Amino acid sequence: MVAMPRVPFDDLYAALHRAMLALGLQGERAALCARLFAETTRDGVYTHGLNRFPRFSAMVRNGSIDVNAEPTCTLAAGAIERWDGHRGPGNLNAWAAMHRAMQLAQEHGIGAVALANTNHWMRGGSYGWLAAEHGLFSMCWSNTLANVPAWGAKSPSIGNNPFILSIPRTSGPVVLDIATSQFSYGAIAGYAKRGQLLPVDGGFDAEGNLTRDPAAIEATQRSLPIGYWKGSGLTIVLDLMAAMLSGGLATHQLPLDPLREAGQSQFFLAVSPHALSTAAELDAIADGVIASLRQATPVDPAKPVRYPGEQTLQLRAENLRLGVPVDEDVWQQLLATT
Amino acid sequence: MVAMPRVPFDDLYAALHRAMLALGLQGERAALCARLFAETTRDGVYTHGLNRFPRFSAMVRNGSIDVNAEPTCTLAAGAIERWDGHRGPGNLNAWAAMHRAMQLAQEHGIGAVALANTNHWMRGGSYGWLAAEHGLFSMCWSNTLANVPAWGAKSPSIGNNPFILSIPRTSGPVVLDIATSQFSYGAIAGYAKRGQLLPVDGGFDAEGNLTRDPAAIEATQRSLPIGYWKGSGLTIVLDLMAAMLSGGLATHQLPLDPLREAGQSQFFLAVSPHALSTAAELDAIADGVIASLRQATPVDPAKPVRYPGEQTLQLRAENLRLGVPVDEDVWQQLLATT
Repeated sequence: MVAMPRVPFDDLYAALHRAMLALGLQGERAALCARLFAETTRDGVYTHGLNRFPRFSAMVRNGSIDVNAEPTCTLAAGAIERWDGHRGPGNLNAWAAMHRAMQLAQEHGIGAVALANTNHWMRGGSYGWLAAEHGLFSMCWSNTLANVPAWGAKSPSIGNNPFILSIPRTSGPVVLDIATSQFSYGAIAGYAKRGQLLPVDGGFDAEGNLTRDPAAIEATQRSLPIGYWKGSGLTIVLDLMAAMLSGGLATHQLPLDPLREAGQSQFFLAVSPHALSTAAELDAIADGVIASLRQATPVDPAKPVRYPGEQTLQLRAENLRLGVPVDEDVWQQLLATT
Repeated sequence: MVAMPRVPFDDLYAALHRAMLALGLQGERAALCARLFAETTRDGVYTHGLNRFPRFSAMVRNGSIDVNAEPTCTLAAGAIERWDGHRGPGNLNAWAAMHRAMQLAQEHGIGAVALANTNHWMRGGSYGWLAAEHGLFSMCWSNTLANVPAWGAKSPSIGNNPFILSIPRTSGPVVLDIATSQFSYGAIAGYAKRGQLLPVDGGFDAEGNLTRDPAAIEATQRSLPIGYWKGSGLTIVLDLMAAMLSGGLATHQLPLDPLREAGQSQFFLAVSPHALSTAAELDAIADGVIASLRQATPVDPAKPVRYPGEQTLQLRAENLRLGVPVDEDVWQQLLATT
């Protein structure tokens, strides 16, 4: 693999900011959209930051994303609200929705926003980090286009819904940011390109057997939900809950062309612990759990067990110090946009 | 496998009710506890109904469960409350907690109860069905004793936390009721006893390789979280959220002896759609999703894709018609108790 060049975070942000302005985003919105893209790459989630910019840009140009559309509250019912994203930029809509769920949680102890008619939110973890860094617990998820067969089916009928949970902790939030498929097709393509097997079974081959061969899974398009039937069921209920509570579209209604994938439904939940516990009490429980994970016997003595989000803080620090790794082609494309 | 005898549901309930009274439960509490056990077996979840009664009974006798302890609210903060289960019967505590979350959701749109100091809730799905049958969405989970190695570890340090989501639907709720391990040790023992391989990898053998051999997993005690590293992370955050919000114990603090496993932390969330949508609007979305699952090409043409909870309704109807299958030994033991 060719080493990726590194650029200072501020340069990455500045280039993305110029690009957002060039795409028609304005003022604070251009700044926030650029910051979310830049921070995603800074945190090591390379698939969902800068490398997503070409697709984001194409979807603005083909009309799937309306850069000037702002989300609006269509129904308020106490601690839960329904919002319409009006097909604006998915990361701005999701950021606003989690922000509003956090306000509702500060007021009611717990708060939720169901968001319809939005767009790909890029890195779901961004909204989990947002809540946790403000001392709140959160949970959020999005549906996606149909790209995984439900358990028992051969043809794709469920998404690989990203699912995020986050926990506030003074010495570093715990943030889980997973998709409900074992591997994305992007990840599978990466293994195929490098001529590697997947580390665990990732789908079915043409004979209907589970396989670690990425090319075989690319051929069948039968990738696996996490936990087989369990993740398939989880994906279905997350889709139902997001679509029903937001009054928006379900997976089977979303366009199958990734460049036209618009109209997703999402759900954002925030929980405030402030009336329940002090930060010190919460930290004591969280630190105790993490200490117990460290005490388990590691498979590889050189690799102690990590908690979700731990690697993010390490990569963030490293990338701020050394510069953020960028894909040379995408970086040049970004510079050319502006 | 020897066919299990079937007994009428009313006889099963009556025998359990007598047994609960004999164990010291009183009035409505004895009736509800018996009903939850009986309905679990009626619904085909044989591992968590009648077959759990011997362990429940032993834990009452050894003092781990206080049959007369009733849950109390220790802190109310708007739409979220913290409750203490006082180590009363886990199913009664969980039922009360979901019931209270549902009341809070009726009032605030969304409601939650974090419950500390409780006991095994038997079938987690019971509380999901409770909410869905009253037209509410719900989500709940419990932590458990450490019985699964975290990803990257060889020794058990996380639980197999049951995780339940439920969706109201007029023609049959959608209820997902899963543990975060791929197979319980009970299920693994069943495959071993029948001399069968697991249908998919369920853990590691002594050489550290993934395996479908149940005996090898029993030997290493290294069973798998769903989705490998993903389910491991999910289990950790569910444990953290339950313990931190309830102010109760985390997995690493729970006794390792299943007969002394007491003090679990649980979280119950209910969401009311009543201010958002009519039942007809909700049904249209849910029925559309389920129809889309049916349209996928099945692996086996004789087995159309099912949604979570679908089999429960089929088994419930069958068991009410033909009688509820019971384990002969456990049934005789129950009759002898009373």
